[in-house]
Amino acid sequence: MIEVQEALALIDRFAAESPEVSAEVDAGLNGAILAQNIFAPINLPEFRQSSMDGYALCGGAPEGHELIGEIPAGSPNTYNLKPGQAVRIFTGAAVPDSADRVVMQEHVAIENDRVTLIKDPSSGANIRAIGSQIKQGQLVIDKGTKVTPAIIGMLLSLGLTQAAVRKPPRVCVLVTGDELAQPGVQKSPGQVYESNGSVLEAVVKEDGAQFVETIAVKDDFHASVQAIKQAVSKADLVLISGGISVGDYDFIAMALTQLGAEKHFHGVRQKPGKPLYFGTLEGSAIFALPGNPASTLSCYCVYVRRWLQNYLGTNPATVTMPLGADLVNRFGRALFIKAKFDQGQAVPIDEFNSATLLSFSKADILIFMGAEVTELKAGEMVETYKI
Amino acid sequence: MIEVQEALALIDRFAAESPEVSAEVDAGLNGAILAQNIFAPINLPEFRQSSMDGYALCGGAPEGHELIGEIPAGSPNTYNLKPGQAVRIFTGAAVPDSADRVVMQEHVAIENDRVTLIKDPSSGANIRAIGSQIKQGQLVIDKGTKVTPAIIGMLLSLGLTQAAVRKPPRVCVLVTGDELAQPGVQKSPGQVYESNGSVLEAVVKEDGAQFVETIAVKDDFHASVQAIKQAVSKADLVLISGGISVGDYDFIAMALTQLGAEKHFHGVRQKPGKPLYFGTLEGSAIFALPGNPASTLSCYCVYVRRWLQNYLGTNPATVTMPLGADLVNRFGRALFIKAKFDQGQAVPIDEFNSATLLSFSKADILIFMGAEVTELKAGEMVETYKI
Repeated sequence: MIEVQEALALIDRFAAESPEVSAEVDAGLNGAILAQNIFAPINLPEFRQSSMDGYALCGGAPEGHELIGEIPAGSPNTYNLKPGQAVRIFTGAAVPDSADRVVMQEHVAIENDRVTLIKDPSSGANIRAIGSQIKQGQLVIDKGTKVTPAIIGMLLSLGLTQAAVRKPPRVCVLVTGDELAQPGVQKSPGQVYESNGSVLEAVVKEDGAQFVETIAVKDDFHASVQAIKQAVSKADLVLISGGISVGDYDFIAMALTQLGAEKHFHGVRQKPGKPLYFGTLEGSAIFALPGNPASTLSCYCVYVRRWLQNYLGTNPATVTMPLGADLVNRFGRALFIKAKFDQGQAVPIDEFNSATLLSFSKADILIFMGAEVTELKAGEMVETYKI
Repeated sequence: MIEVQEALALIDRFAAESPEVSAEVDAGLNGAILAQNIFAPINLPEFRQSSMDGYALCGGAPEGHELIGEIPAGSPNTYNLKPGQAVRIFTGAAVPDSADRVVMQEHVAIENDRVTLIKDPSSGANIRAIGSQIKQGQLVIDKGTKVTPAIIGMLLSLGLTQAAVRKPPRVCVLVTGDELAQPGVQKSPGQVYESNGSVLEAVVKEDGAQFVETIAVKDDFHASVQAIKQAVSKADLVLISGGISVGDYDFIAMALTQLGAEKHFHGVRQKPGKPLYFGTLEGSAIFALPGNPASTLSCYCVYVRRWLQNYLGTNPATVTMPLGADLVNRFGRALFIKAKFDQGQAVPIDEFNSATLLSFSKADILIFMGAEVTELKAGEMVETYKI
């Protein structure tokens, strides 16, 4: 058994890196991971832009400026204004080079094509200078950033139609356990309903991975070998639920050894999720997660996400925040404690039973409490993992 | 012009409610909004369940318990143990009614089908009682909750295959502005690249709505009327970007009046997003959002999300947390200030220009600062909106 930090370091060491692919910049890019720094190919704005509906002016004109035309937003029209001349202009329109300021429409009086200023704005007023928002060549978004709707908008505003992104991993899920019955099907006595397949499918999809399929596996050595072979042939990441403890009916570790998988660790000094396994086989990463539904999800959030961060080149996703209540650790193992984010604090949920998803369904973060830490006081900063 | 709180109250008052539909419980349910309280139809566990690999024991046996059989997890096997007898049992398996405790396998010695206890556990040890995790009839998940992977697991563990959820709204996006050119297409002088269509498509999809289409509209009265007619005929929610200010080329308000839309408000004392419009036409809700990309997204996060919360019956989504730096409001209007969530605090991003998406692309929350609030000190609690 190893400690949590050693397990995370082994994941960092043995994680693969996803290939880069080119993707179209549109709504479908949301959630993708950028594989390149984005430098602005143009200035924003690209031209001197009016920030008001009003009048672009050239020089002074005590008896009023002569109105000689109009420039709606988007219009290619321009004018070579002489001192004492003005053009009607709208928000976003290109201000002629010959204009030195824009007066807002509320500050003028118009009569017989003559613009009389009620207030004369200062030079440069209401004109957005070229590059005042973003300068051509400026680094605007860092490599490894997860694309958000705002980033899609940013890329499009810069006229970009393609971006290099990381190819998401293909993921296969294996669900083991003869005690499992599908919901909706008549159970035998002693059986419980299966849920991990759908839970893992939902989280990997949420995390942007390409879900391939879920394979149900009997508690049988040869069936386990066959299922793992099939899974690694079509996935970059294989998630196995159950069968990884040391019981007489736990065949996953044996099957992985038989297939020649390289074991990086098996067993982490933590609660929940002690039997966790991480290995590599034929270039695919394999996590065998304890079958208890709450342990499965806890290990996913901490370890599988860490692997995904490495694979996709994103930053580690823990968030540090103040603890909302005292915590005690009597277990001599690291704890991952379900909590709610509330008023800027991580507030533990008083339901520690690792065997149920009930507290998970109310939690949104996991608080990490190290094996060597026996107590934490409210207000101390703690490391948290998103659920 | 009205205040932010009045605008939100009008949205609450005039928002429609989505119909309920029945949905399958599988990975595809992730993100849906529950339209029913979920009560547990069964106990969890449903039977007395071993929490260890070990031996289920009946009574005392100074000379060792007689081993009479085995119960793997999921097995329907059971035994009527007499005092002094034991069965091999595995984690998750049904403990026979006649057994009073389970001893873990590390605490016994086995010889000739006789189980000698190294440590004798107390009565009831290592047996999960019926309903000890969840009691039949217990309320486990509240109506209005957004389904997460853990909730999918919870529902499946309870054997549920169908759940009542709220039908997501169909959303049409109208993008107005003759100054807009599609990225990848040669622009005329004076034009800028269009981005709001894809941004709005991405956010409404992220929020679980059913995106219908984006319609580009010329700055023209009749084109605006036609486009709005078309949009309301196929959407529950119409989002219009641009054309809502008071310039000579802003035709949206006129077109809405012409079509007989019921205007709930037009203009909010805020920055960004002052010209915001909210109305209803033929049963569809219409938001006309200022066309500036950053204003559009800010108004979406605050007002359109509020409408979605009402429509789907979820809780208001603001989060209160401490402010990470002092803020000043010199505008006499409510401000929505881009910020990053860091160490449990809302840290403003020092880039207030509403005309760019650059700061939005780095922010994850908006801090609300009321029109009447002239300054806020670091550490004060503030209301924030998720971006």
